[in-house]
Amino acid sequence: MSYNLLKGKKGIIFGALDGNSIAWKTAEKVHEEGGTFVLTNAPIAMRMGQIKELAQKTGSEIVPADATSEEELKNLISRSMEILGGKLDFVLHSIGMSINVRKGRHYTDQNYDFTGKGWDVSALSFHKVMQGLYNADAMNPWGSIVALTYMAAQRTFPDYNDMADNKAYLESIARSFGYFFGKEKKVRVNTISQSPTPTTAGQGVKGFDGFISYADKMSPLGNASAQDCANYTVSLFSDLTRKVTMQNLYHDGGFSNMGVSQEVMEKFSE
Amino acid sequence: MSYNLLKGKKGIIFGALDGNSIAWKTAEKVHEEGGTFVLTNAPIAMRMGQIKELAQKTGSEIVPADATSEEELKNLISRSMEILGGKLDFVLHSIGMSINVRKGRHYTDQNYDFTGKGWDVSALSFHKVMQGLYNADAMNPWGSIVALTYMAAQRTFPDYNDMADNKAYLESIARSFGYFFGKEKKVRVNTISQSPTPTTAGQGVKGFDGFISYADKMSPLGNASAQDCANYTVSLFSDLTRKVTMQNLYHDGGFSNMGVSQEVMEKFSE
Amino acid sequence: MSYNLLKGKKGIIFGALDGNSIAWKTAEKVHEEGGTFVLTNAPIAMRMGQIKELAQKTGSEIVPADATSEEELKNLISRSMEILGGKLDFVLHSIGMSINVRKGRHYTDQNYDFTGKGWDVSALSFHKVMQGLYNADAMNPWGSIVALTYMAAQRTFPDYNDMADNKAYLESIARSFGYFFGKEKKVRVNTISQSPTPTTAGQGVKGFDGFISYADKMSPLGNASAQDCANYTVSLFSDLTRKVTMQNLYHDGGFSNMGVSQEVMEKFSE
Amino acid sequence: MSYNLLKGKKGIIFGALDGNSIAWKTAEKVHEEGGTFVLTNAPIAMRMGQIKELAQKTGSEIVPADATSEEELKNLISRSMEILGGKLDFVLHSIGMSINVRKGRHYTDQNYDFTGKGWDVSALSFHKVMQGLYNADAMNPWGSIVALTYMAAQRTFPDYNDMADNKAYLESIARSFGYFFGKEKKVRVNTISQSPTPTTAGQGVKGFDGFISYADKMSPLGNASAQDCANYTVSLFSDLTRKVTMQNLYHDGGFSNMGVSQEVMEKFSE
Repeated sequence: MSYNLLKGKKGIIFGALDGNSIAWKTAEKVHEEGGTFVLTNAPIAMRMGQIKELAQKTGSEIVPADATSEEELKNLISRSMEILGGKLDFVLHSIGMSINVRKGRHYTDQNYDFTGKGWDVSALSFHKVMQGLYNADAMNPWGSIVALTYMAAQRTFPDYNDMADNKAYLESIARSFGYFFGKEKKVRVNTISQSPTPTTAGQGVKGFDGFISYADKMSPLGNASAQDCANYTVSLFSDLTRKVTMQNLYHDGGFSNMGVSQEVMEKFSE
Repeated sequence: MSYNLLKGKKGIIFGALDGNSIAWKTAEKVHEEGGTFVLTNAPIAMRMGQIKELAQKTGSEIVPADATSEEELKNLISRSMEILGGKLDFVLHSIGMSINVRKGRHYTDQNYDFTGKGWDVSALSFHKVMQGLYNADAMNPWGSIVALTYMAAQRTFPDYNDMADNKAYLESIARSFGYFFGKEKKVRVNTISQSPTPTTAGQGVKGFDGFISYADKMSPLGNASAQDCANYTVSLFSDLTRKVTMQNLYHDGGFSNMGVSQEVMEKFSE
Repeated sequence: MSYNLLKGKKGIIFGALDGNSIAWKTAEKVHEEGGTFVLTNAPIAMRMGQIKELAQKTGSEIVPADATSEEELKNLISRSMEILGGKLDFVLHSIGMSINVRKGRHYTDQNYDFTGKGWDVSALSFHKVMQGLYNADAMNPWGSIVALTYMAAQRTFPDYNDMADNKAYLESIARSFGYFFGKEKKVRVNTISQSPTPTTAGQGVKGFDGFISYADKMSPLGNASAQDCANYTVSLFSDLTRKVTMQNLYHDGGFSNMGVSQEVMEKFSE
Repeated sequence: MSYNLLKGKKGIIFGALDGNSIAWKTAEKVHEEGGTFVLTNAPIAMRMGQIKELAQKTGSEIVPADATSEEELKNLISRSMEILGGKLDFVLHSIGMSINVRKGRHYTDQNYDFTGKGWDVSALSFHKVMQGLYNADAMNPWGSIVALTYMAAQRTFPDYNDMADNKAYLESIARSFGYFFGKEKKVRVNTISQSPTPTTAGQGVKGFDGFISYADKMSPLGNASAQDCANYTVSLFSDLTRKVTMQNLYHDGGFSNMGVSQEVMEKFSE
C-alpha cells in the first residue's frame, strides 16, 4: 500500500548491499511512496552486492562513491542533483564497518590503524557527507537526513567492539551538524537506533544469532525488522516530522527502555 | 493534502478545548487522514470550550468523561466502541492542569491537596485511561497510544512547578504500561515531548511569552507548533511506526539537545 | 577505618528499619565518619524495627515522624535542630512502599486508593521533607540532601509495579526542588539509583532473588551492597562533592550502562 | 584540611599544564590526601608548562609521554610502577585539543586531517592509555580511572566544534572499556563532565568568557571550579565509590538538568 508520502521528493541512499540491507528495504519503500533517488555505495562493496537489481527495480541510477573521500562525495552530490533535476530532500547514511571486528581483535587489544580506518568509514563519513551537502547547498529547506545507529553507543554490548565508540561519534555528529543544518538550511538531522538486524553486515558480529534472540525476548513488541526500519525512515523523510531534529530515535520494539522482561527473567529462575 | 494514512482507523481524542489546543489540531489532521474518532473532555472543560464545532467539522461524536473517574472512562470506552463500530487503533491523551500553578502557590510552598488533585488529573489519568482500555480489551493489535508531555520532566524550568513532577510520572506510566500493552496486546505507547505551545492551557504559566521566545531562539528549527504536533502525532498513529514504543519523543525543533544557541549567547555578550 | 569526613556535620536519617536497611548502614558509617544525627521513621515502622539498638550504637536520638504528615515533619525538623544544636548539613530519605505490590495487585489492575497512598509515602514525602526544611531554613549552606531510588524510574522491570512511577516522581522532585534549594540556600539535592539490595523492604517484590542474581551477572563489578551504598552516600554528604546537584547517580556496579553482559548472553546460547 | 582518603594509593596524572589546569589542582589535592603519583604530559606541552614546579611541590617524578603513542605509554606505565613501587590505584586522563578550533576552521568546514589528529589526541588516547594499563596488568583491584569530559558530548554548543564529537567518543570508551576493566580487573572507569573551566586550554574556545558567565547563571550552585573538580575526583579515587563505574558524572552546579534558570530568563524579558 502506498500513501504517496514522498511524492516529488529527491534523495541519495547510501549502503544498499543486498536484499537484507536496511538501505535496500528503504530504497524500495521510498520508491513505493513516490520518492526518487540515486543509489550509492563504495566501489568495493558494489562489486559484492546486487545493487544493479535494486536500481532497475526502482528506476534509479547508481553513482559509486567512497564515503571517506571528500572528492568522490562532491562528485556524487553534484551528479545526483543533475540526475534528479534539483536539490535533495532526503539522505540515508547506512554505512558501518569495523576492521578490528573483522580481524578478530578484542576490544582490549585493538590495532589502532584498524580503529582509525573503521572510525573514518563508520563515523566520520557521516560528517563528510553532510559537509559536502552543506557546502554545495544541496538540500532543500525541510529536507531530512537520517543515519542508522545502534544502542551500543549508550550501553555496552561486549562483542560490538569499537563500533560502539564509532556509533557514539556518529550520533554526536548528528547533533553537532544538526544545529547548523537546522539553523542555516532548515534541514533536520536524526539517527535511528535500530534493533539488531540480521543484515549481511550484522552477521560479522560474533554470537549474533543468540544476541538477536535475546533482544527479541527483551523487547515487548519484538525486534524491529529491516522492513519496519524502512517504514519508519519514510516517516522521518516525510513532511509529518519536520520539527524533529538532533534526535537519536530508538526503533527497537521497546528494548531501550527495558530493565528486564519476564521472558528474560525466566531464564534466571529455571 | 491528505495521504490517507489513517484510513479505517478508529480512536479517542482527549483534551480538545478550543482551536489553540494540540488535541484540536490533531483531531482535524486525523480526520483529514481518514481516521474516525470520539472526542472527549471533562464535563467542566467542555462548558468552556467549543468542542461541538470540532465535532461537527470532523463528523465526530462527543462523550464527556472525567479522566480521573474509572467509571466514566469505562463508559467512554464502551460507548466509543459502539459508536465507531469496533475496537480502537489510536488514543491521544492531552490532559494537564496544576492547581498549585493556578492558585499561585510557589513550588517550595505547595498545598498538597492541590498537588494530589493535579497529579490525579495530569498524570494518573493516563494510567486510568490505559487500565480501562487494557481490561476492556479495547485496542486492536498494532494500535498506538500517545500522551503529550513536556521536557520539564527531565530538566528544571522554574515556573513549571509541580507539572514537572506530574509529567515525569506520566512518562514513567508510558514505559511501565507500554511493556504490558506491548507484550500482551501488541499496542505501542509513547509520549511526545512538545515545544512550549501557546495553547489556552499553556497561558496559565507565568512568563510564558518570554519563555516561548527563549525556546524559539534556542531551537535551530524554531518551536514546533500545535499543527506540527498534530502532524507528528499522525505519523505515530500510522502503520509506519509500529515498532516504536515506550519512548519519550522530543518534538521541539532541536531544543532538547541544545546546550546553547548562537542567538541565546548573543544576549550574554551584549 | 575512618577519615573524619563528616566531622562536625549534623543531619537527619529517615528509614532505618533493621540491620539490612541501607539507612541503617548509612547511619553507622556517618557515625564512624564523625557526623551526628537524629534517626526517624514512621511510628508504625518503628514498632517493627530495631532502631533503638542503632540509636544506642551511634549515640543518636529517635524522633518518630510520619513522612506524609507536614505537621510531624515540622516537629521532627525543629526537634532535630534542638537536639543537634543547630542547622543541618545532611538528610537521607530512604522511604518507599507500594500497597499495590503488598496486596498483589498487578500493574494493569491497580487499586487507585493504594496507588495514591503509595505515591504519598514513596514520592511526595520527599517533597514534604524538603518543603519543611526549606521553609524552616533548617539547612546550612553547602548541605546535602540524598534520596534513594531505583532504575525502574527509567526502564521497565515488570514486577516493580507502581514503585517505578513513584521513583520517577521522586527523581523529578530532586531536580525541581534542587534548583530552588541550590539557588536560594546553596544546598545540593541528589538521588542515588542503587542496585537491587536485599533489604527487608526489597523482599516484598516478587521474584526478587532471581532478579538480584540477574542484576549481579549483568553488572561488571557486581551489585552494590547496602554497605557500598552507605559509603557512597557519605561521599555525597562530604565537602568533596559540593557542586554535584540535581543528579540521579547510578550506584550499581555498572548495570545501568550495560546492554548485555557475557554472562547473561551465555544463558541464551546454552 | 586532609582526610588521608588516598593514603597508600598510587597513580598517574595526565595533563597538568599550569596552575589553572584541573589536573594540576587534582595533583595537589591527591598529594594532600596522601596519594603518590607520576606526572605526565606530552613533551611539547611540557615545554610550555610549569610542571616541574608541581613535581617539586608534590614530591613527584615526571615521565613525559605522547598519549597517542602506544610505545611511550608502555614506557610510562612500566616506569611509573617502578617509581611508585607497585601497581596503580588511580589514573586521571585530562587531555584534549582540537586543531580545527585552533586553526579557526568552522564545524561545517573541517579539515579532516585536523579532525583525525584531534580525535587521536582527545579521544583515542584514552583507549590507548587503558589498553596499555590493561595489558600490562598495571592496575590494582578496586582501582579507579577517570577522564575529564564536557557536556557538549550530549548537547550542542556551537563553538565547541569537533571537540563535542571527540568527547562523545571518549565517554563511549569509558563505558566500553569499563565493562572489561570491571569484569576482569575490578577496576572502575568513569568520566567527569565538568562545568566550563577557565583553564589555559579552555581559553582557546571562541567567546569563552561570555559562555562561562552564561553557564554560571544557568547553574543553581554556579559553575564548578578546577578546585571543586579536584575534590570530586579525589572522591572518585577513594574507596567510598567502589561500585560506581561506566558513568558519565555531571559536576556542574546543576547545569545539566536545567531547562532555564530565572536569571537567564530575565535576559529575555528585559
